[in-house]
Amino acid sequence: MMTQLNQRVLAIPKSLIHDPFWSEYIRLVRKVVVPYQWEALNDRVPEAEPSHAITNFKIAAGEAQGEFYGMVFQDSDVAKWLEAVAYLLETQSDPDLEQIADEVIEIIAKAQQPDGYLNTYFTLKEPGNRWTNLAECHELYCAGHMIEAGVAYYQATGKRVLLDVVCRFADYIDTVFGNEPGQLQGYDGHQEIELALMKLYHATGEDKYLRLSSYFLEQRGAKPDFYEDQWEKRGKTTHFPQLTMTFDHAYSQAHLPVREQDTAEGHAVRLVYMCTAMADLAAETGDPGLLEACRKLWSNIVNKRMYITGGIGSMEHGESFTMDYDLPGDTAYAETCASIGLIFFAQRMLRISPDSKVADVMERALYNTVVSGMSQDGKKFFYVNPLEVYPAAHGKNRIYDHVKPERQGWFGCACCPPNIARLLASLGDYVYTMQDGTVYVQLYIGSELNTEVNGKLIKLEQHSKYTSDGEVNFRIRTEEALRFTLALRMPDWCDRVEVTVGGEWHEFKQGDQDGYIRLNRVWEPGEEINVVFSMPVLRMKAHPLVRQTFGKVALQRGPFVYCLEEADNGAELYQLKLPRNSTFEVKRDDRIHEGLNVIHVNGERWMAAENWQEHLYRSDSNWIMESTQLKFIPYFTWANRGLGEMSVWVEEALPI
Amino acid sequence: MMTQLNQRVLAIPKSLIHDPFWSEYIRLVRKVVVPYQWEALNDRVPEAEPSHAITNFKIAAGEAQGEFYGMVFQDSDVAKWLEAVAYLLETQSDPDLEQIADEVIEIIAKAQQPDGYLNTYFTLKEPGNRWTNLAECHELYCAGHMIEAGVAYYQATGKRVLLDVVCRFADYIDTVFGNEPGQLQGYDGHQEIELALMKLYHATGEDKYLRLSSYFLEQRGAKPDFYEDQWEKRGKTTHFPQLTMTFDHAYSQAHLPVREQDTAEGHAVRLVYMCTAMADLAAETGDPGLLEACRKLWSNIVNKRMYITGGIGSMEHGESFTMDYDLPGDTAYAETCASIGLIFFAQRMLRISPDSKVADVMERALYNTVVSGMSQDGKKFFYVNPLEVYPAAHGKNRIYDHVKPERQGWFGCACCPPNIARLLASLGDYVYTMQDGTVYVQLYIGSELNTEVNGKLIKLEQHSKYTSDGEVNFRIRTEEALRFTLALRMPDWCDRVEVTVGGEWHEFKQGDQDGYIRLNRVWEPGEEINVVFSMPVLRMKAHPLVRQTFGKVALQRGPFVYCLEEADNGAELYQLKLPRNSTFEVKRDDRIHEGLNVIHVNGERWMAAENWQEHLYRSDSNWIMESTQLKFIPYFTWANRGLGEMSVWVEEALPI
Repeated sequence: MMTQLNQRVLAIPKSLIHDPFWSEYIRLVRKVVVPYQWEALNDRVPEAEPSHAITNFKIAAGEAQGEFYGMVFQDSDVAKWLEAVAYLLETQSDPDLEQIADEVIEIIAKAQQPDGYLNTYFTLKEPGNRWTNLAECHELYCAGHMIEAGVAYYQATGKRVLLDVVCRFADYIDTVFGNEPGQLQGYDGHQEIELALMKLYHATGEDKYLRLSSYFLEQRGAKPDFYEDQWEKRGKTTHFPQLTMTFDHAYSQAHLPVREQDTAEGHAVRLVYMCTAMADLAAETGDPGLLEACRKLWSNIVNKRMYITGGIGSMEHGESFTMDYDLPGDTAYAETCASIGLIFFAQRMLRISPDSKVADVMERALYNTVVSGMSQDGKKFFYVNPLEVYPAAHGKNRIYDHVKPERQGWFGCACCPPNIARLLASLGDYVYTMQDGTVYVQLYIGSELNTEVNGKLIKLEQHSKYTSDGEVNFRIRTEEALRFTLALRMPDWCDRVEVTVGGEWHEFKQGDQDGYIRLNRVWEPGEEINVVFSMPVLRMKAHPLVRQTFGKVALQRGPFVYCLEEADNGAELYQLKLPRNSTFEVKRDDRIHEGLNVIHVNGERWMAAENWQEHLYRSDSNWIMESTQLKFIPYFTWANRGLGEMSVWVEEALPI
Repeated sequence: MMTQLNQRVLAIPKSLIHDPFWSEYIRLVRKVVVPYQWEALNDRVPEAEPSHAITNFKIAAGEAQGEFYGMVFQDSDVAKWLEAVAYLLETQSDPDLEQIADEVIEIIAKAQQPDGYLNTYFTLKEPGNRWTNLAECHELYCAGHMIEAGVAYYQATGKRVLLDVVCRFADYIDTVFGNEPGQLQGYDGHQEIELALMKLYHATGEDKYLRLSSYFLEQRGAKPDFYEDQWEKRGKTTHFPQLTMTFDHAYSQAHLPVREQDTAEGHAVRLVYMCTAMADLAAETGDPGLLEACRKLWSNIVNKRMYITGGIGSMEHGESFTMDYDLPGDTAYAETCASIGLIFFAQRMLRISPDSKVADVMERALYNTVVSGMSQDGKKFFYVNPLEVYPAAHGKNRIYDHVKPERQGWFGCACCPPNIARLLASLGDYVYTMQDGTVYVQLYIGSELNTEVNGKLIKLEQHSKYTSDGEVNFRIRTEEALRFTLALRMPDWCDRVEVTVGGEWHEFKQGDQDGYIRLNRVWEPGEEINVVFSMPVLRMKAHPLVRQTFGKVALQRGPFVYCLEEADNGAELYQLKLPRNSTFEVKRDDRIHEGLNVIHVNGERWMAAENWQEHLYRSDSNWIMESTQLKFIPYFTWANRGLGEMSVWVEEALPI
């Protein structure tokens, strides 16, 4: 494929986070998550199943004896760890950590085969079977994660060792796959290399990586089916007999060519990783068909298939999407990784054009599902993020087996924790986008941006009390007065923002058509902008075709969706109702989360008027109501006070 | 175990059904179900998977060549068919059918091994492995069904061939299992032989069969675990690697000695089959510990774990019970066979003592789940009986995979259809119980009972318009005037019954303490009793700890639970509400079911006030209401008018 005329693409500048809410999480990634993962990768965590991931590389490098152990995708754990390390080094020097990483990279480089191939599972365990089972064996997925690590480490440290390794690997892959005679016309069962190759293209400027990414994307869903063809050729063997990856094409979005897909189907993480690559490629090439496919898939996800918490994936089976408007709260999958992938997709869409609604979704996923995914000590994680939990039924009714009512330690198949780590460590890449002398503020996160606008260096400081009070202060540091546009995203939860700039007070009820308030002026050095977002408690409702939430309401204030917990409201949360016209009292509650607010409101507890004793059914009973105080806490803070019920949605008390 | 002093046990006389509601179903069993099953057993149904069940017996009998084909429990299909045939022959002569059955019995007799063993799977396929895998291989389960067939055929025809076969088989089993050296101290993974041996004991009067039944019951749950012990001894092989029968002891109620079980756990059918045997044995021996265990398990099922339709089993996983008050409507299992087993259990409990509440449950299961299980042409069946269905989500959200929104043809593992057939063909065994000159009317089904009361022959005719109007007429045919008691069950749904007897009108608001209205008098030959049950539409509620139905109401009239269907009420049934004080109009509607009534009532349809377009969530929306007419139909008649939504429970509109 030839690259079409490059359209104008927004830039994504890196900022440095200093935020009262997020800095603590990033500190945890640095001080707890990444060190813990390093111990785990080296099998030094007694309570965890051995990872063997580092040892696998050492064996492949000839530095240790033994056999491969772990999943087919075990290598990717090392890659994700290295990627997170790179982001940490990028923002703060840490010679000890860098030295460890350098040593790991040296082992990886030695484990690379002479032809460029790099995968310890196939090298050690099935040396003759490279590329024979793309549907199941994650070979290109692992390659993709290593490429991401190589790019990140190069950008953080300037060191090329791992970048060169992954370039050689990518060059080799480029010889294996393609439409020439003797090449495989295929693609991986788990999308990842597509977005990684786009990163490699951005880092190196080499068109061939963009072309290879495009090849994998365009090949997906071609007939005859690649997975089945490989299955026939290898004698109908499978690695995971209990799974049906080869035949369930929609599971890995291989049911249709990607340009023809207009609904989000199959495994949620795979879909958003694929869309991330598609959007990156569409931005780069300006290909209108690909862009249209991205927009359709984005729209289907966020307008039909996304939980109010920014979670995606309505069922455990295949960790998958189900259908429009099917959003069960108690049997949800809503994997943390899938929301992280949705944030990747959003970021790439924001390169194509500014659109506050896209950033709204990014914010929703980040402040609710993603941050819920990690405990406030960085040691425990949610993989599944339900919107309603009745712990007594867990272990009893097995439809909840995938849902854990409390955060868990790091597991054997540890996808979510390192994904949280790499996202939070690189959070500075999500705050701003830039184009044509305009700086778009996509997220209101305290940070420092050093960049060039209209040919001049600027430092843009953002001081944020966004999560607690909706207040944000910007300070522009320049050498001299400079005209440019600061475009403030008008959040979807806000209908009034006060902006004080140059001593003048302005009120905005909405942004421009794309949702941004554009402040275009000549900025004096040191000039301040004060922004106050009105942050009312919103009574959110879901589309009336969402049968699981019909008649119910959820509270949101600022970026946070709220929930009820048993610890505050007693058990049997389903018996509670929120009257239509009750008044909210917003109160800071540091016990729930430092600096954040909880919501108190008059509510109702409904109950049976009668003593039911041993009855299970009766015809002479009435529901009666008793007034009660309800307390809502930010969703992401749930499950920090022991086992208990939780619910985001609550019945609205309706007038007759 | 020695039989204790026999307590006074109620008798279960056989009546002959002539009922405007049930006779048609019994005719279908005779004319459609049993003939169809005969074709299926002989592999002459082109659209069905081959059964091979008759051929297996022919091969084992030396009358055909070939290999065993089918499930380990394939023999039981033949046994259940023979049992149904026996009940049909008992109530109506059919020489052709009897000849076919005699021929099958001849083959079965030839397939019996010299030592009495009878099982085509082990005889043909694993001749050396008899009794090596009781957890999984259903050997005693198949034996039990054959014993039930042998008893039924003997009682229907007086022919002893099959009875002698199963006696020899039981005698042989009695040598294999027991506490003597060299005997197996075990029991089957699927309870069935226990209740069958009790039937054999009743038919033959041989104490050893009662003792063997008792042995199997008492051995269950003993430590060390029998299944695991067998698994070790046979080299840790399994027949069904995907199942965990050997280790999940609660699945087959082997987690505790049966006397210590006080909650209904595990596979629902297994539990109620076990309880049926326990109650039969307790009735016979008067063993107070066993009786207490029966009462506890009965109480736990019907007061904590039963759907309003008489369905049991709240989840697909293990087709099992879950926990108290966990009764999801849409992911229910509520297998037809489990409700049939619950009816068996109820019948045995009614032998111990008259208790209208036990018969109420029998009626609830029969008139709702069981009769829902078969289509009105006898050709299609429900295995799973959900209380709420949104067909659009089926095939999309896989938590519904086990739930079919339409009745299905006869399957490979065809447990429910023959179970319905044998229950309906023997329905005359469930109408009455008798004791001490009292005839208890347990079910109001048009029928003729010929029996002896106080030493005199009587014929009790019941003419029933119970299902349509709540009216029942009894006529007592005797040679001469005779004093005895006719005890009428006061149904749990009725609070007023008018009884006209001897020209006198009586009104009863309740029965005696055990729930029966006792009419003790000298009956003149030909005397009539007219009974009119007040049959209001009841607004049923479930216990407030059932979170799935909280705030909801279900309608019941007479024995029928009602439901809403999309065909009458439009789609999105979850948007409907039933006001607290609405007036019901009960109307005969022969299009729904000949002679039955539907319920019309003013209702509400709630909707969003706004046009939601592409929004998924919004904060400025209100629910508004529009009046609508609701139509409820008897639950069992659902899914006869094409694919559509159905719901038993509907939100009650509550005053603020």
